[in-house]
Amino acid sequence: MSDPGRVRQAAEVLEGVVRRTPILSSPFLDDIAGRRVLVKAECLQHTGSFKARGSWFAISQLSEAERTRGVIAFSSGNHAQGVAHAARAAGIPAVIVMPSDAPALKIANTKALGAEVVEYERGSEDRDAIGARLAEERGLTLVKPFDNADVIAGQGTVGLEIAQDAGVDDADVLVCCGGGGLTAGVSLGLDGTALRARPVEPEGFDDVARSLRSGGIERNNRLSGSLCDAIITPSPGKLTFPIMQERCGPGLVVTEEEALRAMAHAFLRLKVVLEPGGAVSLAAALFHPEEIEGDTVICVATGGNVDAPVFRKALDTL
Amino acid sequence: MSDPGRVRQAAEVLEGVVRRTPILSSPFLDDIAGRRVLVKAECLQHTGSFKARGSWFAISQLSEAERTRGVIAFSSGNHAQGVAHAARAAGIPAVIVMPSDAPALKIANTKALGAEVVEYERGSEDRDAIGARLAEERGLTLVKPFDNADVIAGQGTVGLEIAQDAGVDDADVLVCCGGGGLTAGVSLGLDGTALRARPVEPEGFDDVARSLRSGGIERNNRLSGSLCDAIITPSPGKLTFPIMQERCGPGLVVTEEEALRAMAHAFLRLKVVLEPGGAVSLAAALFHPEEIEGDTVICVATGGNVDAPVFRKALDTL
Repeated sequence: MSDPGRVRQAAEVLEGVVRRTPILSSPFLDDIAGRRVLVKAECLQHTGSFKARGSWFAISQLSEAERTRGVIAFSSGNHAQGVAHAARAAGIPAVIVMPSDAPALKIANTKALGAEVVEYERGSEDRDAIGARLAEERGLTLVKPFDNADVIAGQGTVGLEIAQDAGVDDADVLVCCGGGGLTAGVSLGLDGTALRARPVEPEGFDDVARSLRSGGIERNNRLSGSLCDAIITPSPGKLTFPIMQERCGPGLVVTEEEALRAMAHAFLRLKVVLEPGGAVSLAAALFHPEEIEGDTVICVATGGNVDAPVFRKALDTL
Repeated sequence: MSDPGRVRQAAEVLEGVVRRTPILSSPFLDDIAGRRVLVKAECLQHTGSFKARGSWFAISQLSEAERTRGVIAFSSGNHAQGVAHAARAAGIPAVIVMPSDAPALKIANTKALGAEVVEYERGSEDRDAIGARLAEERGLTLVKPFDNADVIAGQGTVGLEIAQDAGVDDADVLVCCGGGGLTAGVSLGLDGTALRARPVEPEGFDDVARSLRSGGIERNNRLSGSLCDAIITPSPGKLTFPIMQERCGPGLVVTEEEALRAMAHAFLRLKVVLEPGGAVSLAAALFHPEEIEGDTVICVATGGNVDAPVFRKALDTL
């Protein structure tokens, strides 16, 4: 079960092993947004995204026998690197199942972080079957990217740090949202404060915003075709959705173009590198001020794992 | 006088008003350098460079009468923004004398930070005469960019934070070096440790490295034509040079191409934006490992105020 106490427990485990990322600001961003903008820069986390938190805590909670056998994850992105990093630090084997057409750099990075990468053909092979076989053969424990109570609690430490460090009593906390692991976790981490987590998604992939509105799990019509690849998921998770329903404010939706412009502003004013999916929260703060309440808004800038060509697109918006 | 005690005093004044910037790292950078690389990310400082520290401390030391009259600085770059930022926070007037052909963005930024910008024609007008006239008419106090004991002490807090936060007993601390205010300050901040500050400069503008070798103040042959504009100065300062002579290790020199490649690695691995002059320390760590001693090297990444076209050049090196 993920609850505020579990997030505090995760914070104790993660103390000294994840970075307490800084909260950045710029008067120039404040001017655009019409209120004070604080940016929790999780792009500066180990592996370039907040994912290092949840996977570390989940791995720390395994039994000795499970640790000996190792972990497995499916991911071509930030979760892969988070699991590989945490597993290496814990000294346990990690298998990451990745499509063979994943960017060569991501495959190389995951290997360089010490994981065994198992590639599969996206068109002809069944990822889940490959994973299930490997898990069974070797007794590996699956670390899911978001619908895992320990992963949610680990990500929640971002919320706890915001509550402790931001120096703000009452504000919307905008979170870039895929399956909702970070958003649900942050909402738990903010428990007992008047800070309110709100998911932000790209246009056309707003399953969480729609689910929060309708009260039931809604799905996206498509799962590709967005620059915000890090936060494209079919629907909110079974564990994450009830937490978000209970604790989060309404979702916000931004365009891809707004995400690119937010990346450019982060480059120019904060000197940090964001990926499109890690910039939608800042995009909402800058370009949708009328949908936000309060004198201050806090944005979780969730990741910076972007290739140069996409970053150039962002610079083109300047 | 700048001495280690003065740096500690500056740290007390700057507590809570400057950012305690994070020390970043990546296993990928370690692999390139062949040793552990720690990066003190002063690009994340207010105004995008360490300059916010020295100007803040210098302004805090003014008398009440001096504060009422205000300050003046000559700069088209990072020092201008540092002084403007600190003066606004202190609620005192600031005049920044800038060449009229300075990038429009820098002039706009300095104005947006609340300073009065006085432009002059670089070809036909005498900057120092304009400044002297304004200073006399209004009783403004000049805040020099590096040859000022309080500025040196303020910059030195970077060294103090490294000594406290890096968790390393013995290493070279590479500092991007112009007139030597930061380098001298850092060497004072490292007093009492086995950490050793070393200046890093771009090829063709290595006045400090040559001065340290010859034992006398050497000058650069030219003062333009480098992408590393932030650290191009004619010669080490009268105050900074004796400190560097007493406390610093030998200087290192990198090419402009190496600085651009270091920017690209910082983009890819640390998710921070560096300007060329703020990346020469990382360039030395990555590409001149044979000139460095120890299992760990610490780099001060001094600033991130770079325009998109120059940043694109850095991405081109990937």
